[in-house]
Amino acid sequence: MERIPILKVGQYLLITIQVDLHDKMILALQDELTNMIVKTGARGILIDISALEIVDSFIGRVLAQVASCAKLLDAETVVTGMRPAVAITMVELGISMKGVHTALNAEDGMELLNDILHRDEYAHDFSAIN
Amino acid sequence: MERIPILKVGQYLLITIQVDLHDKMILALQDELTNMIVKTGARGILIDISALEIVDSFIGRVLAQVASCAKLLDAETVVTGMRPAVAITMVELGISMKGVHTALNAEDGMELLNDILHRDEYAHDFSAIN
Repeated sequence: MERIPILKVGQYLLITIQVDLHDKMILALQDELTNMIVKTGARGILIDISALEIVDSFIGRVLAQVASCAKLLDAETVVTGMRPAVAITMVELGISMKGVHTALNAEDGMELLNDILHRDEYAHDFSAIN
Repeated sequence: MERIPILKVGQYLLITIQVDLHDKMILALQDELTNMIVKTGARGILIDISALEIVDSFIGRVLAQVASCAKLLDAETVVTGMRPAVAITMVELGISMKGVHTALNAEDGMELLNDILHRDEYAHDFSAIN
């Protein structure tokens, strides 16, 4: 069975989606991802979809689901590398990825995660002072 | 056509191989990788093969070729995530990946790249002093 590897890069987990997702793979991915978040204590997930030529409502929903799972475990999800044509199709079809941040490429995605997580820390500190 | 995305992560380039490689994809990968090394000035390439269940002599040769290309452009290549069964098969079949470093997982791979590149810098400094 094909599986999508999850790589720990620095303090984040990185997933590159290159193949068409089907149900079993997604269940396996969610399972492995949640386990890895717990094991590594990762606060950020980066999902690169630059290899995907089509993102339909199914994949949109899957990405939103993965992000929701991650969020429950205190991790933020950023989807990167969306092709222009994919962005247009998603808007035309009204596909939304709730709870998912997006960035142009993996590098920007990492920066976005850094920003989000540091802002969180700052908010924590701030609320502790007041 | 399927393509293998190359992600810039920090100062390194990261490639996850999930699908069976064929000639056209490899040419496209080599082309894109060399271009990205030149464009980004990356000094390290990390290739994760944890999704591959089989590494035959063809893939072994391809990885060695990619590493040689990268080396000519002053970048080191680390292959990570090899499965135990793959390692056994490679030894049994006498497949060698010349010029390719290996590490257990992406995280260790990054550390290895850091070590190699800092050692290089140290050697440069040392030869400059003497």
